[in-house]
Amino acid sequence: MAEPIPTEQWAQVAEQIGGPLIYKKIPVQQPGPDEVLIHIKYSGVCHTDLHALHGDWPLKTKKPLVGGHEGAGIVVALGSLIEDIQIGDYAGVKWINGTCLLCSFCQQSDEPLCAKAALSGYTVDGTFQQYCIAKAAHVARIPKDCNLESIAPVLCAGITVYKGLKESGVRPGQTVAIVGAGGGLGSMACQYAKAMGVQVIAIDGGEEKRALTSQLGAETYVDYIRSENLVRDIKAATEDGLGPHAVLLVAASERPFQQATEYVRPRGTVVVMGLPASAYLRASVFESVIKMISIKGSYVGNRRDTAEAIEFFRRGCIKVSYKTCGLSELQKVYDLMEKGKIAGRYVLDTSK
Amino acid sequence: MAEPIPTEQWAQVAEQIGGPLIYKKIPVQQPGPDEVLIHIKYSGVCHTDLHALHGDWPLKTKKPLVGGHEGAGIVVALGSLIEDIQIGDYAGVKWINGTCLLCSFCQQSDEPLCAKAALSGYTVDGTFQQYCIAKAAHVARIPKDCNLESIAPVLCAGITVYKGLKESGVRPGQTVAIVGAGGGLGSMACQYAKAMGVQVIAIDGGEEKRALTSQLGAETYVDYIRSENLVRDIKAATEDGLGPHAVLLVAASERPFQQATEYVRPRGTVVVMGLPASAYLRASVFESVIKMISIKGSYVGNRRDTAEAIEFFRRGCIKVSYKTCGLSELQKVYDLMEKGKIAGRYVLDTSK
Amino acid sequence: MAEPIPTEQWAQVAEQIGGPLIYKKIPVQQPGPDEVLIHIKYSGVCHTDLHALHGDWPLKTKKPLVGGHEGAGIVVALGSLIEDIQIGDYAGVKWINGTCLLCSFCQQSDEPLCAKAALSGYTVDGTFQQYCIAKAAHVARIPKDCNLESIAPVLCAGITVYKGLKESGVRPGQTVAIVGAGGGLGSMACQYAKAMGVQVIAIDGGEEKRALTSQLGAETYVDYIRSENLVRDIKAATEDGLGPHAVLLVAASERPFQQATEYVRPRGTVVVMGLPASAYLRASVFESVIKMISIKGSYVGNRRDTAEAIEFFRRGCIKVSYKTCGLSELQKVYDLMEKGKIAGRYVLDTSK
Amino acid sequence: MAEPIPTEQWAQVAEQIGGPLIYKKIPVQQPGPDEVLIHIKYSGVCHTDLHALHGDWPLKTKKPLVGGHEGAGIVVALGSLIEDIQIGDYAGVKWINGTCLLCSFCQQSDEPLCAKAALSGYTVDGTFQQYCIAKAAHVARIPKDCNLESIAPVLCAGITVYKGLKESGVRPGQTVAIVGAGGGLGSMACQYAKAMGVQVIAIDGGEEKRALTSQLGAETYVDYIRSENLVRDIKAATEDGLGPHAVLLVAASERPFQQATEYVRPRGTVVVMGLPASAYLRASVFESVIKMISIKGSYVGNRRDTAEAIEFFRRGCIKVSYKTCGLSELQKVYDLMEKGKIAGRYVLDTSK
Repeated sequence: MAEPIPTEQWAQVAEQIGGPLIYKKIPVQQPGPDEVLIHIKYSGVCHTDLHALHGDWPLKTKKPLVGGHEGAGIVVALGSLIEDIQIGDYAGVKWINGTCLLCSFCQQSDEPLCAKAALSGYTVDGTFQQYCIAKAAHVARIPKDCNLESIAPVLCAGITVYKGLKESGVRPGQTVAIVGAGGGLGSMACQYAKAMGVQVIAIDGGEEKRALTSQLGAETYVDYIRSENLVRDIKAATEDGLGPHAVLLVAASERPFQQATEYVRPRGTVVVMGLPASAYLRASVFESVIKMISIKGSYVGNRRDTAEAIEFFRRGCIKVSYKTCGLSELQKVYDLMEKGKIAGRYVLDTSK
Repeated sequence: MAEPIPTEQWAQVAEQIGGPLIYKKIPVQQPGPDEVLIHIKYSGVCHTDLHALHGDWPLKTKKPLVGGHEGAGIVVALGSLIEDIQIGDYAGVKWINGTCLLCSFCQQSDEPLCAKAALSGYTVDGTFQQYCIAKAAHVARIPKDCNLESIAPVLCAGITVYKGLKESGVRPGQTVAIVGAGGGLGSMACQYAKAMGVQVIAIDGGEEKRALTSQLGAETYVDYIRSENLVRDIKAATEDGLGPHAVLLVAASERPFQQATEYVRPRGTVVVMGLPASAYLRASVFESVIKMISIKGSYVGNRRDTAEAIEFFRRGCIKVSYKTCGLSELQKVYDLMEKGKIAGRYVLDTSK
Repeated sequence: MAEPIPTEQWAQVAEQIGGPLIYKKIPVQQPGPDEVLIHIKYSGVCHTDLHALHGDWPLKTKKPLVGGHEGAGIVVALGSLIEDIQIGDYAGVKWINGTCLLCSFCQQSDEPLCAKAALSGYTVDGTFQQYCIAKAAHVARIPKDCNLESIAPVLCAGITVYKGLKESGVRPGQTVAIVGAGGGLGSMACQYAKAMGVQVIAIDGGEEKRALTSQLGAETYVDYIRSENLVRDIKAATEDGLGPHAVLLVAASERPFQQATEYVRPRGTVVVMGLPASAYLRASVFESVIKMISIKGSYVGNRRDTAEAIEFFRRGCIKVSYKTCGLSELQKVYDLMEKGKIAGRYVLDTSK
Repeated sequence: MAEPIPTEQWAQVAEQIGGPLIYKKIPVQQPGPDEVLIHIKYSGVCHTDLHALHGDWPLKTKKPLVGGHEGAGIVVALGSLIEDIQIGDYAGVKWINGTCLLCSFCQQSDEPLCAKAALSGYTVDGTFQQYCIAKAAHVARIPKDCNLESIAPVLCAGITVYKGLKESGVRPGQTVAIVGAGGGLGSMACQYAKAMGVQVIAIDGGEEKRALTSQLGAETYVDYIRSENLVRDIKAATEDGLGPHAVLLVAASERPFQQATEYVRPRGTVVVMGLPASAYLRASVFESVIKMISIKGSYVGNRRDTAEAIEFFRRGCIKVSYKTCGLSELQKVYDLMEKGKIAGRYVLDTSK
């Protein structure tokens, strides 16, 4: 009944930092006692993969490296300790490949903060290969009524924005401003917010983004290109003029951040996401204190967030916009990404 | 039984921004239907009073102005609507003199954020006079077993640091780092933290501050003058080396703030207090996101915080260090303050 | 511009406990300094009004009594202290007519728990008259784009179920079971839950209720009449079979309550609402402890809950099912109510 | 360096439900890949052990059974996957021996609710033997400056009451009533509450308990034997007469529970602990709703609670009162327990 597991597989391998990427056959690994082996069918491509390839960040990557951390597939082998996953189950490999499950952060469900976290496609091989290993405790469970191709981008982008919305503390009926609402993460954030009963002020540039975010359920749109006073216009977009209860910055940089601290409602929360290699937050002490605002960094979701984000997808609340190409074509996707020419996400089909 | 109320009283009046202060007799006001008149016996002096005199802040002050917002005294007259306060009760006038009680912030117990808040010694006359008016709903209730002289500084400094500790989310058994622990606010913060079951890392400069904070209950002391690596030393002062769960910056400025974001524990909170006229927060996006830290501005306590902060004082958990002089001597206190020569707080006796 | 205020008005008056109700002309009152006078256009009728008339509860009512606490109308006169409400504004009178705004409960936004709370149609005259007085701080603000007739039942039933949902702690994406989902309160609860992104298991009896709750957005329906094992069936209605995260009992009685403690998910919350004159909660200690469940009593919303519940209505998320008749016909409504023959709510038009 | 591990060891074994206990030599087990073997030096004895022996509860026990779940000792062998524990470390075996770490409860740090939880001395062999196995992820880490003998009772009783206090939501400065404050669990609860900055109303019977609880830091004592009106007296013991913010029932039964719902402050929480085989909670709906009280079942702590409870002990905040005897004398302890003749806890020395 279980599919046969080959000894070799296709993968995209970077022998050293900066590349080049080599599409070649490499051995299939065996899972350890607490691990599973997943036949990756589809993998999303994320900006983080490019950071990994270029070695932009203070954290060192594995070498040689198979990147990728948005992989959806089928469980094909189980470690000896695994009881709760079956061969044939759908499963996802995400950024957090495994953690110690013992430290104080793991104990309090903050496993993304575990100092020993293994990161898929960064400190361990990821999903740009046909067979990928992950710790059973961290594998995303994917219900059988989900489509593996379209769920792939949910496994990083979806979980991340859902976590950001939870961290913001915004409640149903309140308002969140999403900066960059028309982009890959932003468009998922709009849908999660709507599904959570939260009203959305979409902030982006141009009429195309207006149409897109309106279709995704945003109540209002503020065009930062045309606005003469962004702070005033965003406040005006709330029913009582006091500003949104929360702001989601899907890609934090200094100017939009400082504006967010100005238009967020007193007692509101500005959530900062994304990992630019070197960028700073800056805010006035006086304003921050008398408005009693909160600024929160939000990284990626934990295992519970993952399950919840997937359940919203399963229920049909989240539609992902993506294009599919073959695993062999990854370099082309990177080329487009470097030129800033990607709208939505790319998903790789590992069979091609 | 009620004491007679004179028609005139002594007060310290600033006719214009920048002063000078004039110590003279002015009329005693009558309380409106929802107000009370309090015979101020003692009033603390706060840096904010100096900001008000100098007009440093973006908010405009009343002119002419009677400053002061840490006043403790006895209720001598009641507005027609007042039922729950009796003549003869002890009561305190604090920074928030009154608010609308109707707006969304008042409705959610965030009355310090009320856009119509009247501020004692700033937008309405304060406690540097013998008889002061305040909204009954906002007057601090002071139990009869409290000493009016020593409680005066609690009415601003005490409430403010207690609120900051609550906002930090630090729980009993966890650790808070207090930056400026040996100063006026810091030394109260140490005591409140201890009374709340929280362990304190006191951060300040010099051996005198070490001795003081140790006596107030701080578990450890880090001397920022002698430390060669403050971030490392503060982390090392926690049991597991991961850093304090919260940091209290009683007077936020850029460098100590940025250090705080570095040594605070992942998932920890940096609370910023104080109102420097122009200062900025600055933090790395990358670090803030992967550590998932929170940065919160904390202003002053609401009415419930006020009652709780006073109850800790009543129970003997908080000892205030202060010197007393006459209301007539306020200018001398300001002179010392401007020279940075004040340790602890000054309290004015309005009978002198 | 302001409408003229008559000196006399029509009202339904109970001279003594148990009635009879007398429809007659009585004087119009003048508002005190902190009050407003509202020309009530429509008033909902609630079971509580019948309890008041019969004197069923441990709390004593005013005598003679004008009942009613779901009144929507127009502000026609203001007390001398009122600044934030204008003559001509739409406003609602709800169960909590006014509170002291000073006590520890008022200070923490729990004004329904104020020991001095004045209760509309119970300890002060209510909305079964054409002109009703309420404390300005407690009057519900109704936006001009709301219909006064259909919003009337929101002012008690709507706020109450919305508060219950908030108290339950159920989060968007999670599941709430609503016991009595097809009734007056239940059908509003279904809509609020849906608007809050919460999935609903509707529990009621019969096919008509199935159709109704499905139309209101409930994901599943469990018919307590046909179910052979209610606990098992409700658990089975959740995706993972562990039971709903919260249960809302809009009219708590012993058997449904005990069942709720059995089918609620471990760590879940059972919220008890409604005020039966004498009924008891009963639950197994062993089960409650090892499942770590919470049981919470939820009374009525505070002022912030009121504003939020109205905002959901304004946005079109809540459709109220009601029949309208004249104020003069109140006795007929009570007659139907006593016979248990009311589906949905009755709204009284005070002009008839 | 590591101590030699024998192949046989002394243990107290119940071959069947109801006993008898047999003190005999049994083989020492080998730990699995994710387990550790601990040389138990001391083990507390808990009422639960007696329930296990008698088979009182709906959950089935292992047969034959080695009971005990408060074991403190030294790690002597590690499974192949274990990295974060060293041989020679101090460690504790507690009620939760291991859980799946995968289910939704484990994911949200509620591992005591895991349906696959292995229970020490109940579904797996416990600490009434010299060498005990537990899952590495669940073993309590004990710092080297702790005394293994006196910490043993903290591993169940201490963690349980600490968890109950956390669940109650009581904050520093507020008041908790502890019912049974002079007993084994109660006396630890008094100390944890005090260390958490919480004021204690101790409720128990007799002058001896008064003296004991006062010495442990309780502010007031209410003697249920001498009180003519317990509800009134407990409310009167709070500063404002409104009752305690939380009530801890360390051994829930009907009458004290119902009283607790009456004297707890509006918005307060009654926490129910303990696992009587058949007992029921009972409360008035009317009172529960209009006071908006919460009733919560609290089971045992999770791993984070465990670490925190131990840290309070390490810091010297918790003094455990116990008597020590040999493992061989367990039957005598049970005999005393059945006669209700135990004050404080018994600790078994496994070397005797």
